[in-house]
Amino acid sequence: MNFLVLHGPNLNLLGKREPQIYGSVTLAEINQELENLALELGGCTLSFFQSNTEGELINAIQEASTACDGILINPAAYTHTSIAIRDALSSVRLPCVEVHLSNVHRREEFRHTSLTAPVALGQICGFGCDSYLLGLRALFNHVKNA
Amino acid sequence: MNFLVLHGPNLNLLGKREPQIYGSVTLAEINQELENLALELGGCTLSFFQSNTEGELINAIQEASTACDGILINPAAYTHTSIAIRDALSSVRLPCVEVHLSNVHRREEFRHTSLTAPVALGQICGFGCDSYLLGLRALFNHVKNA
Amino acid sequence: MNFLVLHGPNLNLLGKREPQIYGSVTLAEINQELENLALELGGCTLSFFQSNTEGELINAIQEASTACDGILINPAAYTHTSIAIRDALSSVRLPCVEVHLSNVHRREEFRHTSLTAPVALGQICGFGCDSYLLGLRALFNHVKNA
Amino acid sequence: MNFLVLHGPNLNLLGKREPQIYGSVTLAEINQELENLALELGGCTLSFFQSNTEGELINAIQEASTACDGILINPAAYTHTSIAIRDALSSVRLPCVEVHLSNVHRREEFRHTSLTAPVALGQICGFGCDSYLLGLRALFNHVKNA
Amino acid sequence: MNFLVLHGPNLNLLGKREPQIYGSVTLAEINQELENLALELGGCTLSFFQSNTEGELINAIQEASTACDGILINPAAYTHTSIAIRDALSSVRLPCVEVHLSNVHRREEFRHTSLTAPVALGQICGFGCDSYLLGLRALFNHVKNA
Amino acid sequence: MNFLVLHGPNLNLLGKREPQIYGSVTLAEINQELENLALELGGCTLSFFQSNTEGELINAIQEASTACDGILINPAAYTHTSIAIRDALSSVRLPCVEVHLSNVHRREEFRHTSLTAPVALGQICGFGCDSYLLGLRALFNHVKNA
Amino acid sequence: MNFLVLHGPNLNLLGKREPQIYGSVTLAEINQELENLALELGGCTLSFFQSNTEGELINAIQEASTACDGILINPAAYTHTSIAIRDALSSVRLPCVEVHLSNVHRREEFRHTSLTAPVALGQICGFGCDSYLLGLRALFNHVKNA
Amino acid sequence: MNFLVLHGPNLNLLGKREPQIYGSVTLAEINQELENLALELGGCTLSFFQSNTEGELINAIQEASTACDGILINPAAYTHTSIAIRDALSSVRLPCVEVHLSNVHRREEFRHTSLTAPVALGQICGFGCDSYLLGLRALFNHVKNA
Amino acid sequence: MNFLVLHGPNLNLLGKREPQIYGSVTLAEINQELENLALELGGCTLSFFQSNTEGELINAIQEASTACDGILINPAAYTHTSIAIRDALSSVRLPCVEVHLSNVHRREEFRHTSLTAPVALGQICGFGCDSYLLGLRALFNHVKNA
Amino acid sequence: MNFLVLHGPNLNLLGKREPQIYGSVTLAEINQELENLALELGGCTLSFFQSNTEGELINAIQEASTACDGILINPAAYTHTSIAIRDALSSVRLPCVEVHLSNVHRREEFRHTSLTAPVALGQICGFGCDSYLLGLRALFNHVKNA
Amino acid sequence: MNFLVLHGPNLNLLGKREPQIYGSVTLAEINQELENLALELGGCTLSFFQSNTEGELINAIQEASTACDGILINPAAYTHTSIAIRDALSSVRLPCVEVHLSNVHRREEFRHTSLTAPVALGQICGFGCDSYLLGLRALFNHVKNA
Amino acid sequence: MNFLVLHGPNLNLLGKREPQIYGSVTLAEINQELENLALELGGCTLSFFQSNTEGELINAIQEASTACDGILINPAAYTHTSIAIRDALSSVRLPCVEVHLSNVHRREEFRHTSLTAPVALGQICGFGCDSYLLGLRALFNHVKNA
Repeated sequence: MNFLVLHGPNLNLLGKREPQIYGSVTLAEINQELENLALELGGCTLSFFQSNTEGELINAIQEASTACDGILINPAAYTHTSIAIRDALSSVRLPCVEVHLSNVHRREEFRHTSLTAPVALGQICGFGCDSYLLGLRALFNHVKNA
Repeated sequence: MNFLVLHGPNLNLLGKREPQIYGSVTLAEINQELENLALELGGCTLSFFQSNTEGELINAIQEASTACDGILINPAAYTHTSIAIRDALSSVRLPCVEVHLSNVHRREEFRHTSLTAPVALGQICGFGCDSYLLGLRALFNHVKNA
Repeated sequence: MNFLVLHGPNLNLLGKREPQIYGSVTLAEINQELENLALELGGCTLSFFQSNTEGELINAIQEASTACDGILINPAAYTHTSIAIRDALSSVRLPCVEVHLSNVHRREEFRHTSLTAPVALGQICGFGCDSYLLGLRALFNHVKNA
Repeated sequence: MNFLVLHGPNLNLLGKREPQIYGSVTLAEINQELENLALELGGCTLSFFQSNTEGELINAIQEASTACDGILINPAAYTHTSIAIRDALSSVRLPCVEVHLSNVHRREEFRHTSLTAPVALGQICGFGCDSYLLGLRALFNHVKNA
Repeated sequence: MNFLVLHGPNLNLLGKREPQIYGSVTLAEINQELENLALELGGCTLSFFQSNTEGELINAIQEASTACDGILINPAAYTHTSIAIRDALSSVRLPCVEVHLSNVHRREEFRHTSLTAPVALGQICGFGCDSYLLGLRALFNHVKNA
Repeated sequence: MNFLVLHGPNLNLLGKREPQIYGSVTLAEINQELENLALELGGCTLSFFQSNTEGELINAIQEASTACDGILINPAAYTHTSIAIRDALSSVRLPCVEVHLSNVHRREEFRHTSLTAPVALGQICGFGCDSYLLGLRALFNHVKNA
Repeated sequence: MNFLVLHGPNLNLLGKREPQIYGSVTLAEINQELENLALELGGCTLSFFQSNTEGELINAIQEASTACDGILINPAAYTHTSIAIRDALSSVRLPCVEVHLSNVHRREEFRHTSLTAPVALGQICGFGCDSYLLGLRALFNHVKNA
Repeated sequence: MNFLVLHGPNLNLLGKREPQIYGSVTLAEINQELENLALELGGCTLSFFQSNTEGELINAIQEASTACDGILINPAAYTHTSIAIRDALSSVRLPCVEVHLSNVHRREEFRHTSLTAPVALGQICGFGCDSYLLGLRALFNHVKNA
Repeated sequence: MNFLVLHGPNLNLLGKREPQIYGSVTLAEINQELENLALELGGCTLSFFQSNTEGELINAIQEASTACDGILINPAAYTHTSIAIRDALSSVRLPCVEVHLSNVHRREEFRHTSLTAPVALGQICGFGCDSYLLGLRALFNHVKNA
Repeated sequence: MNFLVLHGPNLNLLGKREPQIYGSVTLAEINQELENLALELGGCTLSFFQSNTEGELINAIQEASTACDGILINPAAYTHTSIAIRDALSSVRLPCVEVHLSNVHRREEFRHTSLTAPVALGQICGFGCDSYLLGLRALFNHVKNA
Repeated sequence: MNFLVLHGPNLNLLGKREPQIYGSVTLAEINQELENLALELGGCTLSFFQSNTEGELINAIQEASTACDGILINPAAYTHTSIAIRDALSSVRLPCVEVHLSNVHRREEFRHTSLTAPVALGQICGFGCDSYLLGLRALFNHVKNA
Repeated sequence: MNFLVLHGPNLNLLGKREPQIYGSVTLAEINQELENLALELGGCTLSFFQSNTEGELINAIQEASTACDGILINPAAYTHTSIAIRDALSSVRLPCVEVHLSNVHRREEFRHTSLTAPVALGQICGFGCDSYLLGLRALFNHVKNA
């Protein structure tokens, strides 16, 4: 099993900025923790991509359609504004899990709606780095049982 | 660590009704899978409660405040209508994880809003029985690291 | 054919309170008239339940699923607020007819929307006690022809 | 007792089109079933009118005010858009029952609101041809007891 | 000067129905009072038309474009629903005055908005038959000074 | 008969500013035309007041309650924002006619709603100075016939 | 005079939870203070009931209709969601005063609307325990002067 | 192939009124251009109908169901208000193309929503007479390839 | 303790106008009752001010900031429209109690929202003159315990 | 005549993904069909560009302003979210035709609004590949006649 | 050049109240800083006016029309509620700059909308006293270049 | 002090397109004027960046966080749609000033809301090129005084 881990805009700043909202872990550390879990789960490899540009995220999703068995995505701010990423996820029809570090339901009104969640298997939010790890487990279990 | 697992209205019908939405697993099987995972995680015991009555769920939440270290809750339909359960969760101030079997973002408009999620640590939805298991992990990790 | 007749909150006060809105017939009289009609229609027996508690109504609906062939329900105030009763009705998948004594479309704005009607066969409102009798006929005909 | 049975736009197509929504009975058959029921109820005669034109329906309602004792109306699409038909019904002040073949609450959002129901005695929807028959009973009982 | 006086749906019932809202004057009396005023003002003749059908009102408006110098219209219920009448008025580009017998601002919410007023010179409402007479004066003065 | 003619904020600028919206007549000229019409109608005297201050307009309305038989008011911008003027008009219970120079339905959305119209006899808008003259006629006729 | 003092969901936790919002007084202390004031006012006895279940609060209201002269109620979270409690209060037609410990207007948007206040005499909020005491005075004065 | 070309309200005025919005071509010229194109495409005949009355347009649609292979319709103002025309189009289940002379998206807010477009194959707007010609091509191609 | 009692627009008419809404007590009588209660409570003096002008009420609030220990205010119609009074109350940071004679929740929709309540200690409405007396008690108790 | 054909996000997947919505034709085939039509129309050449990145589409639009005589654009998901593409189209002031493969009016609510259509000549949707061909004809005719 | 500097309600309290929102500078100091800047810019004189009364601000604006070349205004709370001030500014047609001390976009929802900004040259907010100084520069430059 | 001047989408077209909205100054001229002002203010250097791509603007903001002391940004169309740029500005926590050439409050409804303004110091709009110059002054003063 190959999974693409996709990080949306501003997530490259993780750990350096606004730790009171997003925690103090860096993106590299999250990726490392995901690698460790993949090893523990066995039989799955991960590739990682971060971009601040909507179109590059769409390109990555499209390319994943032939190379990957599933997508773990934190669309960050694009969760709430990008119909184009939604359409990309919907087009490639790979199983996809949406994760968020923070509990979006506690934040501004405009973060309560997700354009991408309806085309994902499900959504996990609020557990910091653990959202990613739980998301990988969810994706792994889904693909194993499919 | 003691955790209360709380099931909201109609979840006693699980596995018997509408498997195309909620899957074919019964509530007893979910509870058993949670027990298994608790054993695997080690050092945590679970108690279970299901009710179709909003007030009984509130009572259970209040009683948990002295006996438990956290709550794993699927408020089901009350997610979207019960300010009283929200207030109960907010009052006891135990760490709480909200889970849903189905991907609520794919369903009717009125299921997209959660009154309880803003007072929970986070929310997990869309993975069937796995939503509960991931929720227990999230709760366990949070309490262990608190 | 066995039908459950379900009366929602405050309907136990019928005939004693606010006759200008709900008429002067009591709940016992309505039940008696329904019994009379059941006799006239032939081959159908009725059981009755009234509760002011949402959860007890849900329990009654769930129990009906094995014992009854259809539900005649006046959800009263819960018509407009209870996703949980809607989910219960939707789960048991029995034919169900929703009735209201008053013409809800003439009253406050918040009584114009029904959460339960979309999961019922149909809705009858505005004819006082006759709403129940017409509802029993509708249910009887539907089950007979199903 | 003389009752006018009024059928709104597109109901002349009944039984020929979209049977999955409106059933397979034709308008002529509905009228025949209403005649049969009128006979059974005794002492009431029916006249029928169908039009696709809002103004012709208004004319018919106005003319009924001297010739009829009540109106059984399925305003179809005009239910949701015609203040003029509402005003006509309100002006003639005859008892009026509104019926719909389909369960309007299950269909598009714009079919959930009725402009005419607030000036009718009540509304019956969702029982196919039986909606008309129940409506005639409701009207008959009302006029008999008035 | 020739003016068309246009009466919308249900206004043929005037004086016979709901006098508490519309007053006890009949449409014939209103037309007579308008004739009297036309005489008093001098140099203007009136033609009258009433219809319950939106399309017939539109036809009348279109025909007025060559025969008349202005339109005095009470669109009644169509005020709030007919974009087609608005488009007709806007197309013929005759000076037009909109009148209402009742004070629409005191009645149901849906009567507070006028689709036709923005394409009229102005609007007069609330003065019963006097609304028409004032409207004729307004139209007469406008055309005289144009 | 004594009538108070009340002019709201910025109407003292009439004729000097924005003639494309409000016409070129000055407030003094409007008052003069009203005086002329009062003479013509016979038996009625007018007093005039203009203020840019909401509270002064309220004071004037209150004082009119003992000295006047009716109020002709152009509340201008306060039409859309002043519940206090509405309450004053409603308190004194004098017959009141609301007028506007421009056709408010053609202008910004926030000018389409009137807080004061529901407590007036009626409203006249769009005829420039003629709105006032028609308003005086409406008020005169109403008081004469009351 | 007998008054029922009704406490809604989660108020049993008073003084133990979230004192920054609800103050540090317990429910027992509030009841005691109310008893003291009843003594001071003279001629009135109080009975108390708290429940987290909507239906039990409705039952209590219905039972009060024969035993009590008035109701002092803090519906807590149900203030904003329970049409059923509103209907119960409306049915029994006892004078009723609604109180809130906190100033609901300062809190979440969904706490600004009260479904029960329109069927109460009035509402008092924001004074902590004093809201109850002032509410008892209001109820006492009203019944005394009725 | 036989196609019905249906023109909605006020389109009979085309070319004579408001050319700045609708262009200077008359309806007869549009019909002629459509005839020319039908000839060019080959194998298709056209019939034409224009009405200002909603019900007559519905009648024409219903009659087309046996005589025609497709409908080219410009519902004009009824596009935004007529659920009845939508139901007619939906009932006859002929392929249907909706066209508009003007770019409705540039005009008033209430012209941005189409009730009929969801039951048509597609919609073409903004190209004046060319909207009709493109619409005929679209319909022709669709029927040819069906 | 010195308290300013502030009466908003139209309250000078109290007792003379619309007694069915506001009761028959005059403003002078309310002030007298407040004086009596102040005497009874002991140690507090009252000053009174009424104005129909928003700006004068703001001036009074600002002046109170050095001379008074609290404000008892009935902003009347300005409750729902005056951000400026809200800002004044918020600026002077004196404890403030908002009162209303009528139960605003039973009246027009636009009276359900208070701009000033969020910057007050709390709000009391619906008890006629008693609202003021209860408000003075609330203010007195708060300042005494501060 | 040179026209730029612009394809928005995810259109590079055409024919490979979700054929039930977008048809089975590939983007290359659409471009080829457009080339064929250009040849048939005569005197016009086409250039093509597809991008998933909003900014690249904007760059292409800007560059077209000197090199092209018109733009044929399918903004896909950006239709509903990109004010920036709208501003680009509006800035270059080239004639522009917006096309969509699917009938957007039948799909999710958020696809019913177009930010770009108001700055285009017109819009064509619902005819699959034929939408592009009709769009090219519309653009060609417009430029030829300009 | 003569400019009127207009300060709205509660700004006379500046520096004394809520410095965390509005800064610690007093109104006198702001006026002094403006005087200093006017001197530095050269050739412009300033007059100052502050009022808590909407009508007095309107009077000042009207009087400025003959005496001044521009207006620098901080309408404070009236920014969001006063159509009358908007109309005054629009009537006098002097260049006008709107300034705010605080960043209104960060505060309550009702402060995000400005009724006056659409009739001003532009708006400056969020820079404390510097908002005024920048506003004077903007006005000065505009008038110099006009 | 180093400041980054960031220009959003389509601003590279400045001076060439739609001068009636944005003025005739080019982006190069604006940058030159800013350089001149930086020189005049002393002690501050500027770097410039323009992009039509949201992600490139985010990258530039992120890079500024170590190299710059503040950001002067005109997000243009992204002002109203980009949560991602807002998050970037919020993450780097540099003082930031938002400017707009046009008075956004006078334009389309969707330009009245700014997603970025709440995370900026303040906003300046409506003064053409002068908006930038005033913005630089605001930023310079803020950083100098910080």
